[in-house]
Amino acid sequence: VENTHQRLTTAGFTNVQLFCQGHETVSTVLAEQEEIKAAIFNLGYLPKSDKEIITQADTTLVAIQTILQHLTIGDRIVIVIYYGHDGEIAEKEAVLAFAEALPQENYTALTYQFINQRNAPPILLTIEKKKHGRN
Amino acid sequence: VENTHQRLTTAGFTNVQLFCQGHETVSTVLAEQEEIKAAIFNLGYLPKSDKEIITQADTTLVAIQTILQHLTIGDRIVIVIYYGHDGEIAEKEAVLAFAEALPQENYTALTYQFINQRNAPPILLTIEKKKHGRN
Repeated sequence: VENTHQRLTTAGFTNVQLFCQGHETVSTVLAEQEEIKAAIFNLGYLPKSDKEIITQADTTLVAIQTILQHLTIGDRIVIVIYYGHDGEIAEKEAVLAFAEALPQENYTALTYQFINQRNAPPILLTIEKKKHGRN
Repeated sequence: VENTHQRLTTAGFTNVQLFCQGHETVSTVLAEQEEIKAAIFNLGYLPKSDKEIITQADTTLVAIQTILQHLTIGDRIVIVIYYGHDGEIAEKEAVLAFAEALPQENYTALTYQFINQRNAPPILLTIEKKKHGRN
Protein backbone atom coordinates (compact mmCIF):
# COMPACT_ATOMS: atom_id res chain seq x y z
CA VAL A 1 0.00 0.00 0.00
CA GLU A 2 2.82 2.41 0.91
CA ASN A 3 4.59 1.69 -2.42
CA THR A 4 1.36 2.26 -4.33
CA HIS A 5 0.70 5.50 -2.47
CA GLN A 6 4.18 6.71 -3.34
CA ARG A 7 3.83 5.85 -7.01
CA LEU A 8 0.43 7.52 -7.24
CA THR A 9 1.77 10.67 -5.62
CA THR A 10 4.78 10.74 -7.93
CA ALA A 11 2.49 10.33 -10.92
CA GLY A 12 0.29 13.19 -9.68
CA PHE A 13 -2.91 11.24 -9.07
CA THR A 14 -5.16 12.75 -6.41
CA ASN A 15 -8.45 10.99 -7.12
CA VAL A 16 -7.43 7.63 -5.64
CA GLN A 17 -8.31 6.12 -2.28
CA LEU A 18 -6.38 3.12 -1.00
CA PHE A 19 -7.71 0.58 1.48
CA CYS A 20 -5.60 -2.00 3.25
CA GLN A 21 -8.12 -4.80 3.72
CA GLY A 22 -9.19 -8.11 2.26
CA HIS A 23 -11.15 -7.79 -1.00
CA GLU A 24 -14.03 -9.80 0.53
CA THR A 25 -14.72 -6.74 2.72
CA VAL A 26 -15.18 -4.40 -0.25
CA SER A 27 -18.82 -3.90 0.72
CA THR A 28 -17.68 -1.99 3.83
CA VAL A 29 -16.33 0.83 1.65
CA LEU A 30 -19.28 0.95 -0.76
CA ALA A 31 -22.57 2.70 -0.12
CA GLU A 32 -25.55 0.40 -0.57
CA GLN A 33 -26.58 1.83 -3.95
CA GLU A 34 -23.09 2.82 -5.05
CA GLU A 35 -22.43 2.00 -8.69
CA ILE A 36 -19.20 0.57 -9.99
CA LYS A 37 -18.19 0.93 -13.63
CA ALA A 38 -15.12 -1.28 -13.63
CA ALA A 39 -13.08 -3.55 -11.38
CA ILE A 40 -9.86 -5.47 -11.76
CA PHE A 41 -8.81 -8.47 -9.71
CA ASN A 42 -5.23 -9.62 -9.79
CA LEU A 43 -5.30 -12.99 -8.06
CA GLY A 44 -2.51 -15.11 -6.62
CA TYR A 45 0.44 -13.74 -4.66
CA LEU A 46 2.23 -10.39 -4.75
CA PRO A 47 5.35 -10.66 -6.94
CA LYS A 48 8.64 -10.36 -5.03
CA SER A 49 6.71 -11.02 -1.83
CA ASP A 50 5.78 -14.04 0.29
CA LYS A 51 4.38 -16.67 -2.10
CA GLU A 52 2.47 -18.29 0.74
CA ILE A 53 0.24 -15.22 1.00
CA ILE A 54 -2.24 -15.71 -1.83
CA THR A 55 -5.82 -14.81 -2.53
CA GLN A 56 -8.25 -17.60 -1.63
CA ALA A 57 -11.21 -19.06 -3.48
CA ASP A 58 -13.84 -18.29 -0.86
CA THR A 59 -12.90 -14.67 -0.17
CA THR A 60 -12.31 -13.98 -3.87
CA LEU A 61 -15.81 -15.26 -4.71
CA VAL A 62 -17.35 -13.01 -2.05
CA ALA A 63 -15.48 -10.04 -3.51
CA ILE A 64 -16.52 -10.84 -7.10
CA GLN A 65 -20.16 -11.28 -6.11
CA THR A 66 -20.17 -7.99 -4.22
CA ILE A 67 -18.69 -6.13 -7.16
CA LEU A 68 -21.14 -7.74 -9.61
CA GLN A 69 -24.04 -6.48 -7.51
CA HIS A 70 -22.75 -2.91 -7.73
CA LEU A 71 -21.66 -3.11 -11.38
CA THR A 72 -23.54 -0.94 -13.87
CA ILE A 73 -25.13 -2.39 -17.00
CA GLY A 74 -22.76 -2.74 -19.96
CA ASP A 75 -19.71 -2.57 -17.71
CA ARG A 76 -17.33 -5.29 -16.69
CA ILE A 77 -14.87 -6.70 -14.26
CA VAL A 78 -11.54 -8.16 -15.31
CA ILE A 79 -10.01 -10.99 -13.33
CA VAL A 80 -6.43 -12.11 -13.88
CA ILE A 81 -6.19 -15.70 -12.71
CA TYR A 82 -2.79 -17.20 -11.91
CA TYR A 83 -2.46 -20.91 -11.36
CA GLY A 84 1.26 -21.67 -11.43
CA HIS A 85 1.34 -21.97 -7.65
CA ASP A 86 -0.22 -24.97 -5.88
CA GLY A 87 -2.54 -22.90 -3.74
CA GLU A 88 -3.86 -21.04 -6.74
CA ILE A 89 -5.35 -23.98 -8.58
CA ALA A 90 -8.37 -24.37 -6.30
CA GLU A 91 -9.06 -20.66 -6.66
CA LYS A 92 -8.79 -20.83 -10.46
CA GLU A 93 -11.27 -23.70 -10.58
CA ALA A 94 -13.70 -22.04 -8.20
CA VAL A 95 -13.65 -18.73 -10.09
CA LEU A 96 -14.09 -20.36 -13.51
CA ALA A 97 -16.91 -22.58 -12.21
CA PHE A 98 -18.61 -19.50 -10.76
CA ALA A 99 -18.30 -17.63 -14.08
CA GLU A 100 -19.53 -20.60 -16.12
CA ALA A 101 -22.65 -20.76 -13.97
CA LEU A 102 -23.57 -17.08 -14.39
CA PRO A 103 -26.93 -16.81 -16.21
CA GLN A 104 -26.20 -15.76 -19.78
CA GLU A 105 -29.22 -13.44 -19.80
CA ASN A 106 -27.50 -11.28 -17.19
CA TYR A 107 -23.79 -11.70 -17.82
CA THR A 108 -21.29 -12.50 -20.54
CA ALA A 109 -18.22 -14.34 -19.26
CA LEU A 110 -15.20 -14.56 -21.54
CA THR A 111 -11.77 -16.11 -21.08
CA TYR A 112 -8.67 -15.13 -22.97
CA GLN A 113 -5.75 -17.49 -22.62
CA PHE A 114 -2.32 -18.24 -24.04
CA ILE A 115 -2.30 -21.99 -24.56
CA ASN A 116 1.23 -22.83 -25.75
CA GLN A 117 3.35 -21.22 -23.06
CA ARG A 118 5.40 -22.62 -20.21
CA ASN A 119 4.94 -21.60 -16.58
CA ALA A 120 1.15 -21.45 -16.58
CA PRO A 121 0.58 -17.92 -17.91
CA PRO A 122 -2.49 -16.26 -16.37
CA ILE A 123 -6.00 -16.62 -17.71
CA LEU A 124 -7.81 -13.38 -18.34
CA LEU A 125 -11.50 -13.59 -17.40
CA THR A 126 -13.93 -10.77 -18.06
CA ILE A 127 -17.51 -10.64 -16.85
CA GLU A 128 -19.80 -8.09 -18.45
CA LYS A 129 -23.16 -7.25 -16.94
CA LYS A 130 -26.00 -7.27 -19.45
CA LYS A 131 -28.85 -6.66 -17.03
CA HIS A 132 -29.52 -6.72 -13.32
CA GLY A 133 -30.58 -9.96 -11.70
CA ARG A 134 -29.40 -12.74 -9.49
CA ASN A 135 -25.82 -13.95 -9.73
CA VAL B 1 -18.97 -21.30 -54.02
CA GLU B 2 -21.58 -19.96 -56.46
CA ASN B 3 -23.28 -17.99 -53.67
CA THR B 4 -19.97 -16.53 -52.58
CA HIS B 5 -19.07 -15.60 -56.15
CA GLN B 6 -22.40 -13.82 -56.53
CA ARG B 7 -22.00 -11.89 -53.30
CA LEU B 8 -18.47 -10.84 -54.17
CA THR B 9 -19.56 -9.64 -57.60
CA THR B 10 -22.49 -7.71 -56.16
CA ALA B 11 -20.15 -6.09 -53.66
CA GLY B 12 -17.74 -5.14 -56.44
CA PHE B 13 -14.74 -7.22 -55.37
CA THR B 14 -12.46 -8.24 -58.23
CA ASN B 15 -9.33 -9.29 -56.34
CA VAL B 16 -10.69 -12.59 -55.08
CA GLN B 17 -10.07 -16.09 -56.36
CA LEU B 18 -12.29 -18.93 -55.23
CA PHE B 19 -11.28 -22.60 -55.15
CA CYS B 20 -13.67 -25.49 -54.67
CA GLN B 21 -11.42 -28.02 -52.95
CA GLY B 22 -10.61 -29.41 -49.53
CA HIS B 23 -8.51 -27.07 -47.37
CA GLU B 24 -5.89 -29.82 -46.94
CA THR B 25 -5.01 -29.27 -50.60
CA VAL B 26 -4.24 -25.57 -50.13
CA SER B 27 -0.59 -26.21 -51.05
CA THR B 28 -1.67 -26.94 -54.63
CA VAL B 29 -2.70 -23.31 -55.11
CA LEU B 30 0.34 -21.78 -53.38
CA ALA B 31 3.75 -21.27 -54.94
CA GLU B 32 6.54 -22.86 -52.89
CA GLN B 33 7.80 -19.57 -51.45
CA GLU B 34 4.45 -17.78 -51.49
CA GLU B 35 3.87 -15.76 -48.36
CA ILE B 36 0.56 -15.55 -46.54
CA LYS B 37 -0.29 -12.66 -44.26
CA ALA B 38 -3.53 -13.94 -42.80
CA ALA B 39 -5.84 -16.94 -42.89
CA ILE B 40 -9.22 -17.74 -41.40
CA PHE B 41 -10.60 -21.21 -40.79
CA ASN B 42 -14.27 -21.65 -40.07
CA LEU B 43 -14.54 -25.26 -38.92
CA GLY B 44 -17.57 -27.50 -38.54
CA TYR B 45 -20.46 -27.63 -40.99
CA LEU B 46 -21.95 -25.08 -43.35
CA PRO B 47 -24.99 -23.44 -41.74
CA LYS B 48 -28.30 -24.27 -43.44
CA SER B 49 -26.58 -27.16 -45.16
CA ASP B 50 -25.97 -30.86 -44.53
CA LYS B 51 -24.74 -31.16 -40.94
CA GLU B 52 -23.11 -34.48 -41.74
CA ILE B 53 -20.60 -32.71 -44.00
CA ILE B 54 -18.08 -31.31 -41.56
CA THR B 55 -14.41 -30.49 -41.55
CA GLN B 56 -12.25 -33.30 -40.14
CA ALA B 57 -9.38 -33.27 -37.68
CA ASP B 58 -6.79 -34.82 -40.00
CA THR B 59 -7.43 -32.67 -43.05
CA THR B 60 -7.81 -29.53 -40.93
CA LEU B 61 -4.42 -30.14 -39.30
CA VAL B 62 -2.78 -30.56 -42.72
CA ALA B 63 -4.32 -27.27 -43.84
CA ILE B 64 -3.23 -25.41 -40.69
CA GLN B 65 0.33 -26.74 -40.95
CA THR B 66 0.55 -25.75 -44.60
CA ILE B 67 -0.64 -22.23 -43.87
CA LEU B 68 1.74 -21.86 -40.93
CA GLN B 69 4.68 -22.71 -43.19
CA HIS B 70 3.71 -19.91 -45.57
CA LEU B 71 2.74 -17.40 -42.89
CA THR B 72 4.89 -14.28 -42.59
CA ILE B 73 6.45 -13.26 -39.27
CA GLY B 74 4.18 -11.21 -37.02
CA ASP B 75 1.07 -12.39 -38.84
CA ARG B 76 -1.58 -14.82 -37.73
CA ILE B 77 -4.25 -17.30 -38.56
CA VAL B 78 -7.64 -17.31 -36.92
CA ILE B 79 -9.50 -20.56 -36.40
CA VAL B 80 -13.14 -20.63 -35.36
CA ILE B 81 -13.74 -23.96 -33.67
CA TYR B 82 -17.28 -25.28 -33.30
CA TYR B 83 -17.97 -28.25 -31.09
CA GLY B 84 -21.73 -28.41 -30.65
CA HIS B 85 -22.00 -31.29 -33.14
CA ASP B 86 -20.76 -34.79 -32.23
CA GLY B 87 -18.34 -35.04 -35.10
CA GLU B 88 -16.76 -31.73 -34.25
CA ILE B 89 -15.45 -32.64 -30.82
CA ALA B 90 -12.56 -34.79 -32.06
CA GLU B 91 -11.54 -31.99 -34.38
CA LYS B 92 -11.69 -29.41 -31.58
CA GLU B 93 -9.48 -31.57 -29.37
CA ALA B 94 -6.99 -32.27 -32.14
CA VAL B 95 -6.69 -28.62 -33.13
CA LEU B 96 -6.26 -27.40 -29.54
CA ALA B 97 -3.70 -30.12 -28.79
CA PHE B 98 -1.80 -29.13 -31.92
CA ALA B 99 -1.82 -25.45 -30.89
CA GLU B 100 -0.77 -26.22 -27.31
CA ALA B 101 2.23 -28.12 -28.61
CA LEU B 102 3.51 -25.31 -30.84
CA PRO B 103 6.93 -24.13 -29.63
CA GLN B 104 6.44 -20.81 -27.86
CA GLU B 105 9.64 -19.43 -29.35
CA ASN B 106 8.02 -19.61 -32.80
CA TYR B 107 4.32 -19.12 -32.18
CA THR B 108 1.86 -17.55 -29.79
CA ALA B 109 -1.40 -19.48 -29.52
CA LEU B 110 -4.35 -17.75 -27.87
CA THR B 111 -7.91 -18.86 -27.23
CA TYR B 112 -10.85 -16.55 -26.70
CA GLN B 113 -13.97 -18.20 -25.39
CA PHE B 114 -17.41 -17.41 -23.98
CA ILE B 115 -17.75 -19.69 -20.98
CA ASN B 116 -21.28 -19.14 -19.68
CA GLN B 117 -23.34 -19.71 -22.78
CA ARG B 118 -25.61 -22.50 -23.90
CA ASN B 119 -25.21 -24.39 -27.18
CA ALA B 120 -21.41 -24.62 -27.15
CA PRO B 121 -20.48 -21.26 -28.66
CA PRO B 122 -17.34 -21.45 -30.81
CA ILE B 123 -13.83 -21.08 -29.47
CA LEU B 124 -11.71 -18.51 -31.25
CA LEU B 125 -8.10 -19.66 -31.63
CA THR B 126 -5.40 -17.43 -33.06
CA ILE B 127 -1.87 -18.50 -33.87
CA GLU B 128 0.70 -15.78 -34.44
CA LYS B 129 4.08 -16.54 -35.97
CA LYS B 130 6.99 -15.04 -34.06
CA LYS B 131 9.77 -16.56 -36.11
CA HIS B 132 10.30 -19.27 -38.68
CA GLY B 133 11.01 -22.78 -37.51
CA ARG B 134 9.49 -26.20 -37.17
CA ASN B 135 5.84 -26.52 -36.31
